[in-house]
Amino acid sequence: MPQQPIDDFYAVIPAGGIGSRLWPLSRAEAPKFLHDLTGSGQTLLRDTWNRLEPLAGPDRIAVVTGRAHRAAVERELPGIPDHNVFLESEPRDSSAAIGLAAAILHRREPDVIIGSFAADHVIRGTRTFEFAVQQAVAVARAGYICTIGIQPTEPSVGFGYIRKDGELDVDGAPEAALVERFVEKPDLETARTYYADRAYLWNAGMFISRADVLLAELAANEPELHAGLLELAEAWDDRERRGPVVDRVWPDLKKIAIDYAVAEPSAEKGRLAVIPGHFDWDDVGDFASLAKLNSHGGKNELAILGSHARVLADASSGIVVSQTERIISLIGVQDIVVVDTADALLVTTSEHAQRVKGVVDALKLTGRGDVL
Amino acid sequence: MPQQPIDDFYAVIPAGGIGSRLWPLSRAEAPKFLHDLTGSGQTLLRDTWNRLEPLAGPDRIAVVTGRAHRAAVERELPGIPDHNVFLESEPRDSSAAIGLAAAILHRREPDVIIGSFAADHVIRGTRTFEFAVQQAVAVARAGYICTIGIQPTEPSVGFGYIRKDGELDVDGAPEAALVERFVEKPDLETARTYYADRAYLWNAGMFISRADVLLAELAANEPELHAGLLELAEAWDDRERRGPVVDRVWPDLKKIAIDYAVAEPSAEKGRLAVIPGHFDWDDVGDFASLAKLNSHGGKNELAILGSHARVLADASSGIVVSQTERIISLIGVQDIVVVDTADALLVTTSEHAQRVKGVVDALKLTGRGDVL
Repeated sequence: MPQQPIDDFYAVIPAGGIGSRLWPLSRAEAPKFLHDLTGSGQTLLRDTWNRLEPLAGPDRIAVVTGRAHRAAVERELPGIPDHNVFLESEPRDSSAAIGLAAAILHRREPDVIIGSFAADHVIRGTRTFEFAVQQAVAVARAGYICTIGIQPTEPSVGFGYIRKDGELDVDGAPEAALVERFVEKPDLETARTYYADRAYLWNAGMFISRADVLLAELAANEPELHAGLLELAEAWDDRERRGPVVDRVWPDLKKIAIDYAVAEPSAEKGRLAVIPGHFDWDDVGDFASLAKLNSHGGKNELAILGSHARVLADASSGIVVSQTERIISLIGVQDIVVVDTADALLVTTSEHAQRVKGVVDALKLTGRGDVL
Repeated sequence: MPQQPIDDFYAVIPAGGIGSRLWPLSRAEAPKFLHDLTGSGQTLLRDTWNRLEPLAGPDRIAVVTGRAHRAAVERELPGIPDHNVFLESEPRDSSAAIGLAAAILHRREPDVIIGSFAADHVIRGTRTFEFAVQQAVAVARAGYICTIGIQPTEPSVGFGYIRKDGELDVDGAPEAALVERFVEKPDLETARTYYADRAYLWNAGMFISRADVLLAELAANEPELHAGLLELAEAWDDRERRGPVVDRVWPDLKKIAIDYAVAEPSAEKGRLAVIPGHFDWDDVGDFASLAKLNSHGGKNELAILGSHARVLADASSGIVVSQTERIISLIGVQDIVVVDTADALLVTTSEHAQRVKGVVDALKLTGRGDVL
C-alpha cells in the first residue's frame, strides 16, 4: 500500500459508455458509472476514484466524460479540480478520450506517466490492485506501454484475453511480462484451454504508460487522430481558445478503440508489457454478471439491489434491481432478472442477459428513445 | 335467443370477492369484477349485465355488493334502478348475499324466479347460455332449485364438479337432469375419470329457483340465517327502517356458502336439478386461467392485457397485465406472468399462479395491507 502517491503518476478515468446491456438501469442520462452496482452505497465512479486516490493523489486524477455528465461527475467527485474534468462534446471512442488526456497532461508535465482505468468496473482487493499499478508504473517508466491483465478465475467467454510472452526484467516490477498478442472473446472450449494454460489473462482495458510514449504510438498508427489531439491539447488550457478548437476538431476525430490504435500494434513491436492482476475484477457487462457479483456464491440466491427495494420472494433466485418503491413479488422463478424503474420494466433470465442490447436497439428503432 | 325478457324472472348478480389470486390486479379497491379481463373493453360486471339483460330486462337485474363498490357499480351499470342495488355492510358469504336478494324480491313479487350469476366469470356463447337459462327457469317453475353445470372441455382440477343423476321430465327443459351430488375439486387422476364419464359437470355457481323455494330450503337448513334475512327484507324497502335493521342484523348473519346451505342439502332430497351448459365458461381463478383465456390456443403465445400496455417481447410466452404506461420488456421467459401496477409488481409463472394468494397473506402479515 503506498504511503505516498506516486510522484510522476496521473490517473485518467474515461467515464463514457452507457452500458446498454444493463438497460433499463443504465441509460443515457444515468450511465453505468453513475450507479451503485455493488451495494457499496456509492457509485462505481466514486469507487474508482477512491481506488486511485492513494496512488495518484486527489489533484492528479482526471476524468474524461460527456458534457451531459459534468454535473453528476462533479457531484460524485467533489474533490476533483476543475482543470481535471475533460469534457467531450460527443463520444469518439476510447482512443480519443484517453489520447486527449495524454496530450493535455503531456503539455502540462512532459514526463508524466498516465494510467487509464474505466469508471464502471468493479474491483475488490485494494492491496493487490495497488501492487499491480505500482509495478505497471515502473514498467511504464522503462518506456513500455503496460496493461494489467486479470488472472482468470474461470473459463469466461465474456472477456477478451491477453497472451503473455516472456518475462520482462524491470526493477520494481517482479511480475512484468511482455504481451504476445490480444485475443477476442473466445468460445467456451477455447476459453477452457486458455484457463488451463495460465499464460492468458483477461483484458481489463487498463493501460499505464508515459504520456509521450502513448502519443508516439498513436502518431505512428493513427497520425490524423494524433494531430487532432495535439491541436486540442495545445488550446485546451486557454479558456478562450478551447471552445472554438474543440468545436472544429473534436467531431472529426476517428472513432477507434485504444486496443486497436495503441495496444495491439504496440504488442506486435514487443513494446507492450503486462502485469498480472490477482484482484477480483468484473466489468459488469450484463445482468448475469451483476447477479453473480451480488450473490454470495449460492446457486439459489436472490440478489437485491436498490436502497428502497421491497421484495417478497417465494422459491425464486436471480436478481432484482429496484429503482422504485413498489412491492415486487416473485413466485417460483429461477435465475430471473427483474429490473424495475420508473418508466421501464425488464424481465429476463441470466441466460438471456446478453440479449438486452437487442431490446435497446429495438426501442431506438421504434422511437422510444425517451426510455433509453 | 329470447325476443322478450322472461316475465317472472329476476337476475341477481352477487358482486363480492376480491379475487386474491389475481393480486396485484385485483384488490380490495378494485376487485376482479371491476376489471376487463378479456380485452372486451368493459368490466366483467358489465359483461355479466349485458348477458343477463336480454333474459331479465334492465329493470329486473339486482346487484348485491359491498358499500365500498356502490359508486363503481352504478358507474358500470348506469341503467340499474336504485332499488336493485343491495348493499352489504360487510361480506357475509354467498348464502347471505343471495338469500337477501331472494327475500327482498320475494316480498316484492311472491312468485318471482331468481337466477344468481357471479359478477366475475367469463362466458362465451350467448345463444347457448340463454338456452341453458331458459331451461333452468322452466325447471325452477316446476319447483326445483336448478343449477347450470358446465360440460367439461378438459380434466380440470381447478373446479368443483356436479354429478348428474337421472333425467328430469320438465316441459321446456329437454336437457334437465337431477343432481346426485356435489364433488370438491378433484386430483388429476380423478378429474380424468370425471372427464371420461360425461356425467360430471363443472360447478359454475349458478342457481335458478323460485325465491320461495330457495328461502324454504334455507329455512330448513339454516333457520337463524333465514330468520335474519326475512327481518332484513321486511324492512328493506322502507328507507327509514332499513338502516337500523341492517346495522343490527347483518353483522351476525352466519357466513356460509350457498353450496352448503342450499344446494347440497337440496341435492340429497332429490330437489336439485341441473342443465348442462355447452357454452365456454371460466371463473378466471388465477393468472394461469387468465393467460389461457387471452391466448388464442397457441402454446408459445404472449397474451397482453391493459389498454395502455407497451410490451416489447423477445422469445417469451405467458401473460403481461399492465396497468401502467411503462415499457415492459421480456426476453426469453416462458409461461411467465408479469402483472405491472402502480404500486406493486408480480413476476411468476403459470405453474405457480395458484400461489399468489400466499403472497397476499404474507403482505397482510407484514403490514402491507395498503397494496392489497
